[in-house]
Amino acid sequence: MRFGLFGGASRGAGQDGDSQSYRAFIDYVVEAERLGFESVFLVEHHFTGTGQLSASLTLLSYLAGLTKTMRLGTAVTVMPWHNPVLLAEQAATVDLVSNGRLDFGVGRGYRPNEFHGFRVDPGEAQARYEEALELVLKCWTTKERFSFDGHFWHFRDVIVEPHPAQAPNPPIWIAAGSEGSIRQAARRGQHVLLDQFGTIEQTAARVAWYKDEQKKCGRTSQAGEIAVTRGLLLVDQEEKRATEIDRRLAAIAFLSATSQIPGTKAEGPTKFGSSTLDTSRGAAEASTIVGQPEECIRRIRELEAAGVDYILFNDPWGGVERLRHFARAVMPEFLAPAKSGVAMAG
Amino acid sequence: MRFGLFGGASRGAGQDGDSQSYRAFIDYVVEAERLGFESVFLVEHHFTGTGQLSASLTLLSYLAGLTKTMRLGTAVTVMPWHNPVLLAEQAATVDLVSNGRLDFGVGRGYRPNEFHGFRVDPGEAQARYEEALELVLKCWTTKERFSFDGHFWHFRDVIVEPHPAQAPNPPIWIAAGSEGSIRQAARRGQHVLLDQFGTIEQTAARVAWYKDEQKKCGRTSQAGEIAVTRGLLLVDQEEKRATEIDRRLAAIAFLSATSQIPGTKAEGPTKFGSSTLDTSRGAAEASTIVGQPEECIRRIRELEAAGVDYILFNDPWGGVERLRHFARAVMPEFLAPAKSGVAMAG
Repeated sequence: MRFGLFGGASRGAGQDGDSQSYRAFIDYVVEAERLGFESVFLVEHHFTGTGQLSASLTLLSYLAGLTKTMRLGTAVTVMPWHNPVLLAEQAATVDLVSNGRLDFGVGRGYRPNEFHGFRVDPGEAQARYEEALELVLKCWTTKERFSFDGHFWHFRDVIVEPHPAQAPNPPIWIAAGSEGSIRQAARRGQHVLLDQFGTIEQTAARVAWYKDEQKKCGRTSQAGEIAVTRGLLLVDQEEKRATEIDRRLAAIAFLSATSQIPGTKAEGPTKFGSSTLDTSRGAAEASTIVGQPEECIRRIRELEAAGVDYILFNDPWGGVERLRHFARAVMPEFLAPAKSGVAMAG
Repeated sequence: MRFGLFGGASRGAGQDGDSQSYRAFIDYVVEAERLGFESVFLVEHHFTGTGQLSASLTLLSYLAGLTKTMRLGTAVTVMPWHNPVLLAEQAATVDLVSNGRLDFGVGRGYRPNEFHGFRVDPGEAQARYEEALELVLKCWTTKERFSFDGHFWHFRDVIVEPHPAQAPNPPIWIAAGSEGSIRQAARRGQHVLLDQFGTIEQTAARVAWYKDEQKKCGRTSQAGEIAVTRGLLLVDQEEKRATEIDRRLAAIAFLSATSQIPGTKAEGPTKFGSSTLDTSRGAAEASTIVGQPEECIRRIRELEAAGVDYILFNDPWGGVERLRHFARAVMPEFLAPAKSGVAMAG
């Protein structure tokens, strides 16, 4: 089992400037590497008014200088906002300075306020995403000059440099949930990010679709190709459990509100990426790594039994203290295969 | 007198990958800080096929983690290529992670191959530049939501975050040469980058225009508001002098060629930014810091007498060895005012 982080800086209570929240987040990531977390996947969001992380690749480049082994991911870079050539250059630069540690997560965008702010038609999101991803890959893997005439972008006689350190390109991660999109990712050799809200059963089905499709097209399954994001609500006392769930529900409601066009409310059920979000207490209970260490271990074992070998934790408020607690009380169960083998034999 | 660096990574002889050239450049910058250079200003170029630096802000963010005191500049960010909102977010992020060390140099672009590659009409460069700079500043200094309807860009109900660490915004540096543009920069409170090719007389006039305009509009002149870029051709033996000039002339000719639209040659005299470039040997002699230490010191004194207090050195091949030589044999003359005062008194 591998563990990583999923999230980004944003102003919390008691932080009145972006500088303070970014610094706290940076310290958190650096400490996570020391504790054994293998990656950080940064979100990209815009226009929330909460000092959210917007320039993920810029921050990853900074983190590349402060970390040694950690994979540096985006989850996800929203393709419709970016000029694909500039994006290819920026991401390749992160890959170079990190000695090939970039995991490039891509998506089409889903937040109404971002489409509204950037004046991009949500109806074009899929086409813009496809065209931009095709072009980024072309930039990374083409050593001669080329011209590109797409529906949205046009370039003439360009050679786009630098090229990334990882050949032919950094792993592409797709946020996916439906059977069609997961099977397509497997066929294309892309990695998959599964959302924070899927149940164990949904997650098991998604992992199975991916592996089945790999088999069908003759690809060998590797470790760490599918990462499941989960809220981390580890507590040291059972009394704190309910408060953590409350806080998570409030955070989700707040996130959902900041995703709407200013002055409007969500229409219909809340969407989170491609998933329809169950905002009930039961759903939060079911889809988080919550509780005291024994319970968290049991929940991670359930994911493991569902075929999961990589979990990205999202925890916007527990800070380094919760990471340390996790590293001390939960992680050793999963990171020492020899010990685990002995335990099983015993 | 302050000294900084001006330039960027690119594949040199013996380097067959971008990774190697970026690493060498990074080591060079880190060593420069140790030696007492106060800044690095990175170029932004595209489509040369020489592995040039394209994502300057991304690389500056990485350098922010490896340096402590050095100012981190762009020279220049070419505004017409960038979405101003994404650019504001990226530059503010660099400013945050570096604890307020960003110097934001901006320009309208001048290379025919870049306008051709990005399919931007050079006739729109000035208008695109003005609109984008206005919008970046609005993003950085506006704490409420706003909409923007320019000629080229449209945004709706956005609040752009993070905000930079430097209030109200990082210094804006303008590459300028004409009297009109230099006086305008002084009126606007912008800093000025002077080119590598101006003579002492031109440089003196430009500094004088800036200071005169500051006086006229009641601004107090500060140290380090005007930086002059110069080729650094310091040598340890007089015999090496001619080779260095040859190499610089060849490098300028190569740069000029890679700036053209592929398959075409420059029409008329070579332009370098807003300057018409004198590519003669005499001009290279006159406008570089060339020769053995005593000569370099004399040439820097001439600039000092012309009102210059900040020089950015460009040296694409001398590497850390030349920087160390400079720090040992030239820099002490200028960085120790007490000693220099004693020498003058003597």
